[in-house]
Amino acid sequence: MKTNLDCIPCFTRHTLEAARTLNLNDADAAQLMIDVIKLILRLDWQQPPPVMARDIHRLIKTQTGNSDPYAPHKQHTTQTALKLLPDIQRIVREAKQPFKMAVRFAIAGNAIDLGAKTMNQIDISAIFKSAQHAPLDDTAVNRLEAQINAARNILFLADNAGEVVFDLPLLEWIGPQKVTVVVRGEPVINDAVMEDARRAGICERFKVISNGADTPGTWLADCSPEFVRAFSAADLVIAKGQGNYETLNDAAHNLFFLFMAKCPVIAEDAGVPLQSYVVIDTLSRQNQKMNETYPRQNVSR
Amino acid sequence: MKTNLDCIPCFTRHTLEAARTLNLNDADAAQLMIDVIKLILRLDWQQPPPVMARDIHRLIKTQTGNSDPYAPHKQHTTQTALKLLPDIQRIVREAKQPFKMAVRFAIAGNAIDLGAKTMNQIDISAIFKSAQHAPLDDTAVNRLEAQINAARNILFLADNAGEVVFDLPLLEWIGPQKVTVVVRGEPVINDAVMEDARRAGICERFKVISNGADTPGTWLADCSPEFVRAFSAADLVIAKGQGNYETLNDAAHNLFFLFMAKCPVIAEDAGVPLQSYVVIDTLSRQNQKMNETYPRQNVSR
Repeated sequence: MKTNLDCIPCFTRHTLEAARTLNLNDADAAQLMIDVIKLILRLDWQQPPPVMARDIHRLIKTQTGNSDPYAPHKQHTTQTALKLLPDIQRIVREAKQPFKMAVRFAIAGNAIDLGAKTMNQIDISAIFKSAQHAPLDDTAVNRLEAQINAARNILFLADNAGEVVFDLPLLEWIGPQKVTVVVRGEPVINDAVMEDARRAGICERFKVISNGADTPGTWLADCSPEFVRAFSAADLVIAKGQGNYETLNDAAHNLFFLFMAKCPVIAEDAGVPLQSYVVIDTLSRQNQKMNETYPRQNVSR
Repeated sequence: MKTNLDCIPCFTRHTLEAARTLNLNDADAAQLMIDVIKLILRLDWQQPPPVMARDIHRLIKTQTGNSDPYAPHKQHTTQTALKLLPDIQRIVREAKQPFKMAVRFAIAGNAIDLGAKTMNQIDISAIFKSAQHAPLDDTAVNRLEAQINAARNILFLADNAGEVVFDLPLLEWIGPQKVTVVVRGEPVINDAVMEDARRAGICERFKVISNGADTPGTWLADCSPEFVRAFSAADLVIAKGQGNYETLNDAAHNLFFLFMAKCPVIAEDAGVPLQSYVVIDTLSRQNQKMNETYPRQNVSR
């Protein structure tokens, strides 16, 4: 998905929010914005938004001299989510449809996204409460369940720190035998890296690998050869979050995207209302597009 | 009020909305955004936002080869508001407190602001309905009423086309003998110029003058000497809209601002919640600041 013109104001707004999250003073925040704006002018606007965001956050990291500026926020959200984990696991266990409830929590956790929200806008208790009754596309959830049951080698592309704790019941439902969790190779915004997965208790129970990249999404051109091989070999990929959707939504692969639609451009692309809990798979989307292009004929027999 | 860092993303967002309002194709919209971003880098960020907006809209007008790009929207909102005018006038006439109701409608009309909203976000019927019960600061309204009664020479700084129709009951309450209405000298966004006042039926009943400038506010350095003389000579200035607040809120003059707080930066500066109907006067604000600086002593006697 290429960058929309609406993303450009959003990048500048996001830079200011990053500056404030990092407690920069006004002069330093203004200088950072100027430098990011100059960078935006040099970048290729045809790339997916996370690829532009990668370069913007490289600049932020260089300019602030901090290779992991969101580390305190990542630790805080992980700890807060871990406190809720026993309750989440109990609710999933006791639910009439445990799989569906686990999917709900995995999507709810995607609200912990400092690429789309500010720290003040993220209320993990509220996320926990709203998750239990959020509407979901039953057909898509059933398709996902059937695909997981049929798959032997699932790649689970994690998104943010803290969010990965909310992913745990779904990972437990799938089981450690057939799923590999993927984290980013280097810190970018609050995306989960290996250390965040470890703090969340994922590493001791699941195989976790790095994608080798610092893009807040999964841009295969940026990823390590090992990851690209694992991606190609997987018979099902579950991709969490908007960034993975933006970088992989055109991929010809058996992919399910799970995310909360926090951005109007993505919501429109996915054909859902803002704030929706989204379960979308590439194959049924491609079938849908085929049907739009070549509508079925009502042939009288 | 100088430009806040939050205004910078907003200028880029606003440029994109302008491009869409003007039906530019994606390539032209992207080029306009690039040119505006380059301009923003050259501008002095210490100026009030409307002074930066003046330069941005000069560029938009030059680039689109259209000196009044919002003309169709201005005519549309004026016509729509004129259809509601008899109802507005009747409601004000029949209200228990006609002055307060006239102030309410004048502020409600300030929602017709393409500097703060997109055309799709402006619903004039909804504005009309919500106006009648909007909460107002009674003390400030009473101060305004007393000041109007005491004044002999009132300058009324109008804001947007369409909005000026909503101003009519307040202007009628003041009466044509002691009020002069001021419009912008040249088109900028949907701000009212002489032609818009004429279409609204203001010119045939009130003295209307131009401020000689193309700033979406009242930046005295930009205005004609005739207007600056009229401004200095007025014993009361009523200034409509956010742009006038941003450019005049530090002026040492007997000024009342009437606007709807549509922007978080302005709402914070004025100390009100977003979407509030705001009546603020400079003199009581200055007294308040004096009291904050030199708090009254509780002297025991």
